[in-house]
Amino acid sequence: MFESIGNETLRTMKILVNVMPKPSVLDPQGAAAAEALKHLGLAGVGRVRIGKVVEIELPDNTEESEIHRAARELLSNPVIEDYSITK
Amino acid sequence: MFESIGNETLRTMKILVNVMPKPSVLDPQGAAAAEALKHLGLAGVGRVRIGKVVEIELPDNTEESEIHRAARELLSNPVIEDYSITK
Repeated sequence: MFESIGNETLRTMKILVNVMPKPSVLDPQGAAAAEALKHLGLAGVGRVRIGKVVEIELPDNTEESEIHRAARELLSNPVIEDYSITK
Repeated sequence: MFESIGNETLRTMKILVNVMPKPSVLDPQGAAAAEALKHLGLAGVGRVRIGKVVEIELPDNTEESEIHRAARELLSNPVIEDYSITK
């Protein structure tokens, strides 16, 4: 009573690419957020930095090197940003 | 020969606030990134969503509820975005 399923299920994973401004780069958006957080009553706020996060659905068998290439060449600007990849 | 240090060291922590568009909200920036990733040769790219990440230095003793209030009222737009907090 088992039915065969014709379509092979492709396994996918979700990865996160975090792109942050390099520590040496001015981050005016982060500085503005820090001021606003202080005004909201969060005492003792230190440095605030704002970056972006890219969530990507990929096939399970995607090469790690391919992901790094995409992060480097497409998702970040290596001159002013660092990226990190989380699976 | 020990010198006393007058300043008490304030312990700080770094928290990350991840702000992503809600699943039901169109994310044209993410869709554009998905197309670009395919052109770069990443086969099988699925959904791509782009959000922001805010890294905040705070005193260790900051109330969790204060952080949630800041994430809700200042760092995200609850109508179209969800946030999550990582310590």
